[in-house]
Amino acid sequence: MDPVLTTALRLGDNALVLGQRLGHWVSRSPTVELDVAFANQALDLIGQANLFYDLAGRLEGKGRSADDLAYLRDPHEFFNVQLVEQPNGDFSQTMMRQVMYATWAHIVFEFMARGKNGDLAAIAAKAEKEMAYHVRHAGEWMIRLGDGTSESHERSQAALDFMWPWTHELFAYDDVDEAMVAAGVLPDSETLKTQWSESLDEVFQRGGLTVNDDGWRPGGGRQGIHSEHLSYLLEEMQVLPRSHPGAQW
Amino acid sequence: MDPVLTTALRLGDNALVLGQRLGHWVSRSPTVELDVAFANQALDLIGQANLFYDLAGRLEGKGRSADDLAYLRDPHEFFNVQLVEQPNGDFSQTMMRQVMYATWAHIVFEFMARGKNGDLAAIAAKAEKEMAYHVRHAGEWMIRLGDGTSESHERSQAALDFMWPWTHELFAYDDVDEAMVAAGVLPDSETLKTQWSESLDEVFQRGGLTVNDDGWRPGGGRQGIHSEHLSYLLEEMQVLPRSHPGAQW
Repeated sequence: MDPVLTTALRLGDNALVLGQRLGHWVSRSPTVELDVAFANQALDLIGQANLFYDLAGRLEGKGRSADDLAYLRDPHEFFNVQLVEQPNGDFSQTMMRQVMYATWAHIVFEFMARGKNGDLAAIAAKAEKEMAYHVRHAGEWMIRLGDGTSESHERSQAALDFMWPWTHELFAYDDVDEAMVAAGVLPDSETLKTQWSESLDEVFQRGGLTVNDDGWRPGGGRQGIHSEHLSYLLEEMQVLPRSHPGAQW
Repeated sequence: MDPVLTTALRLGDNALVLGQRLGHWVSRSPTVELDVAFANQALDLIGQANLFYDLAGRLEGKGRSADDLAYLRDPHEFFNVQLVEQPNGDFSQTMMRQVMYATWAHIVFEFMARGKNGDLAAIAAKAEKEMAYHVRHAGEWMIRLGDGTSESHERSQAALDFMWPWTHELFAYDDVDEAMVAAGVLPDSETLKTQWSESLDEVFQRGGLTVNDDGWRPGGGRQGIHSEHLSYLLEEMQVLPRSHPGAQW
């Protein structure tokens, strides 16, 4: 498969799955301000997915629309990192996943926006600004929660322990990624990981949180291997278009 | 109670409840474009609620924040019209409720933005623009669905039949509303209903839909009387802040 197409699908799938996850908070936030923030961030991510899918559909050349790609693929055809499909859990778990993903995506889009593929650069230029806000928002929350009450600290540390293993996949480059590095589209894995770690370490330090790496490195999401969580998420999302195929209502 | 305070609460409650209803679609829309539209519209409405609650809290003078008003009131203290708490049902039922409410709100905010209360006018000026988009979006969908396949037509007619009784409350003015009319803040009920009917009739006509008025006129939402639907909605929305009162996480 064309590495640009695969990359567009992977980035689109990351954004769609995480956008659905955040959307779930919209009627369940602890404050009105957070309800607004979650709706805003879900909107950013679903919008990004739409742009990446449009591009993927064009590159694929089989006439599949963004909707076809979102609603008519099975879980094993999704190429998002497993991090974004992890359950929302409590508020701190959602925010931990968010700061981990957003920091990664922000670095990737920053590079891509100045990179050598014009189609991806155009999407990344918009997405970069959006992710900068997600990084700031989730980062501030994690510091506040980590450095807050003893309950919020414990929950934040539990969230870090829970989410940490899934971060490794963000840096597990395969042939497609290496081709994109060579083409000047993606940052190399080492630079990406260094920048990501520096940014996250500051959040963890200010929040009094500790990385406990137990050596478990799950992965394979970007090659189509997923946890059962993704099946449930897609089932709920796809039930309407799949039960009325091609219907315009 | 100060009629301005009551009016701010009523409009805030309308927006919050409908925003929660639309937010529920964010992970369940039939297309990516609709997912974006629902997230956008939920965001508009929750943002409006926040502004109305801020104002209500200040007018009340008891130190209640927008969050306190959203999350720490019981159903009988909510003053939204019962229309907005009606269940989402299928897509056409959601869109029917949306065009009915948005058309009403747009006319109200248009008047209020030029009206004699500066605080309400400032909120209405922003909300008016947002609701104009909701009217257009939901109106176009109802025409398309009403005038679409036989299934979409049937479902749209069923949605109109289901939602129609709850529209009467939009025009059932009480003393508070009359005081606001006298103060040059709200349009009078007759003008409001005439404008609303003209706008809706055009949608129904173009969609081939018929109003079947069976004479049932439920109401009382604006005085704190609600269907069981509102209890479930608030229960889900309020569970987190209520189970951790005052917690900052």
